[in-house]
Amino acid sequence: MGLVGGIEAGGSKFVCAVGTAPHDLRAQTELPTTSPDETIGRVVRFFQDQISHEPLAAIGIGSFGPLDAHPASRHFGYITSTPKAGWQNVDLAGPIRRTLQLPVAFDTDVNAAALGEHMWGAAQGLDTFVYVTVGTGIGGGGMVEGKLIHGLLHPEMGHMRIAHDRQTDPFPGVCPFHGDCWEGLATGPAIEARWKSKGQHLPRDHGAWQLEAHYLALGVTNLVCVLSPQRIILGGGVMRQESLLFLVRRKTQELLSGYIQAPEIVERIEQYIVPPMLGENAGVLGAIALASRMAKT
Amino acid sequence: MGLVGGIEAGGSKFVCAVGTAPHDLRAQTELPTTSPDETIGRVVRFFQDQISHEPLAAIGIGSFGPLDAHPASRHFGYITSTPKAGWQNVDLAGPIRRTLQLPVAFDTDVNAAALGEHMWGAAQGLDTFVYVTVGTGIGGGGMVEGKLIHGLLHPEMGHMRIAHDRQTDPFPGVCPFHGDCWEGLATGPAIEARWKSKGQHLPRDHGAWQLEAHYLALGVTNLVCVLSPQRIILGGGVMRQESLLFLVRRKTQELLSGYIQAPEIVERIEQYIVPPMLGENAGVLGAIALASRMAKT
Repeated sequence: MGLVGGIEAGGSKFVCAVGTAPHDLRAQTELPTTSPDETIGRVVRFFQDQISHEPLAAIGIGSFGPLDAHPASRHFGYITSTPKAGWQNVDLAGPIRRTLQLPVAFDTDVNAAALGEHMWGAAQGLDTFVYVTVGTGIGGGGMVEGKLIHGLLHPEMGHMRIAHDRQTDPFPGVCPFHGDCWEGLATGPAIEARWKSKGQHLPRDHGAWQLEAHYLALGVTNLVCVLSPQRIILGGGVMRQESLLFLVRRKTQELLSGYIQAPEIVERIEQYIVPPMLGENAGVLGAIALASRMAKT
Repeated sequence: MGLVGGIEAGGSKFVCAVGTAPHDLRAQTELPTTSPDETIGRVVRFFQDQISHEPLAAIGIGSFGPLDAHPASRHFGYITSTPKAGWQNVDLAGPIRRTLQLPVAFDTDVNAAALGEHMWGAAQGLDTFVYVTVGTGIGGGGMVEGKLIHGLLHPEMGHMRIAHDRQTDPFPGVCPFHGDCWEGLATGPAIEARWKSKGQHLPRDHGAWQLEAHYLALGVTNLVCVLSPQRIILGGGVMRQESLLFLVRRKTQELLSGYIQAPEIVERIEQYIVPPMLGENAGVLGAIALASRMAKT
């Protein structure tokens, strides 16, 4: 497989790398996300330097959003209505493609991560699965029958409405658009605002984790009902709490109440709701996966 | 296009027809759903009689479920864990295929209806859309990037959990598995149990319809967030209430709060959340669509 470049475009940093696979990441750099001009300029210079040593077949970008990932669209490659100051309606892929004269694949950070897990990680051999990250936001991507989900724009799974019992949990949620959507109730900032403490400082037996698992399981249950995935990969900083995944699995089974009679859910849930396998480099590896797929077609 | 047969397999009746398209339905019959042996026997005899006049290229079955629609599975063509007495683990497609010696396409009733709308109705030209029917249950099917959604089993969209404010609406829901899931709160039987009156007898300005539209919009909002469909088709008996679709559109816009900045949602929602186009024959036409697609491949 040819050498390609990957860009994990995040709201606080950009990670750039060249390589072919998880065991073959050759050069890597991290840049702070400043203005679009400055950031894209530094990205381009990193890859120009790499290309001067060895040619690249393509560049993949997995980006924060909302964004336009429709190749036929006039604004393909743009970050669109993001709340991030200075980055609204910014053409991210265009200047990179034009300056480096390379084919550029562009998708959401979560679809990129999903593709990376499909190529090398926890979703190998599956054609319908979901990748969800729970951190400062909740984002979701994935495949249905072997195709990354795009549709009208791209999924915004974190903005699902979930059941919220205000008598048990009067917390109104932190989403500036929806209040108590999934993201509003269950992200790291929601945990911190509700309990006046960052999640990593809450002890393992704190009630916060039962509630967090309940909300995550409500969202996971909805993903099961809507997409019927063969597996759900749950990553992100909040999932680092060691017993949380176990609780989410148990509560998802409780919420589904045996209705979906698949042994994957009823008997083997520990292989059904799983952590990502690509670890720290998942973001940039997802971008490299996008580029590798483009280079092969 | 060759002549094919379609079977809409429902819990109370089976509708069988031969034809090629909505304007070309040639013979049609309705049978009550009794025992599997008797019902399947009558279905087979209907098609044997049709075949004696003109050969068929394939048979399509759109069935109630849960069912196994994976061609590679040992139980492909079976209705599996249905609550309907006598129909658990029944091989529906097998005896029809073996007796008629024809290729048989088998999918959920809602995926079949979605495919029918894709071929001839409200989803023509789209590759990612959802078809939802709201009646005695809530079922959903659809396509992502041109592929009908299957995954682990098939979607069970009616069993999503939605936000339920028990102070405003203390009704516990009618789903025997989940209580107040989408189906538990918003089907015809839920309306009847909550208001002690069938929906068709409730006046147009009754508060029931505002609440119903709220629940339907919550589910639709979740479908938008998870699948990012290009269109949502809302059918079924409950949707016959004339102002309900209008209310669902408005409430879906309110719930999304402008977060998903697509003109399809923000400006043209009356073309985004739409009724089905295939009308009364939608079920059997969906089955004919399944068969036509199979005959072409």
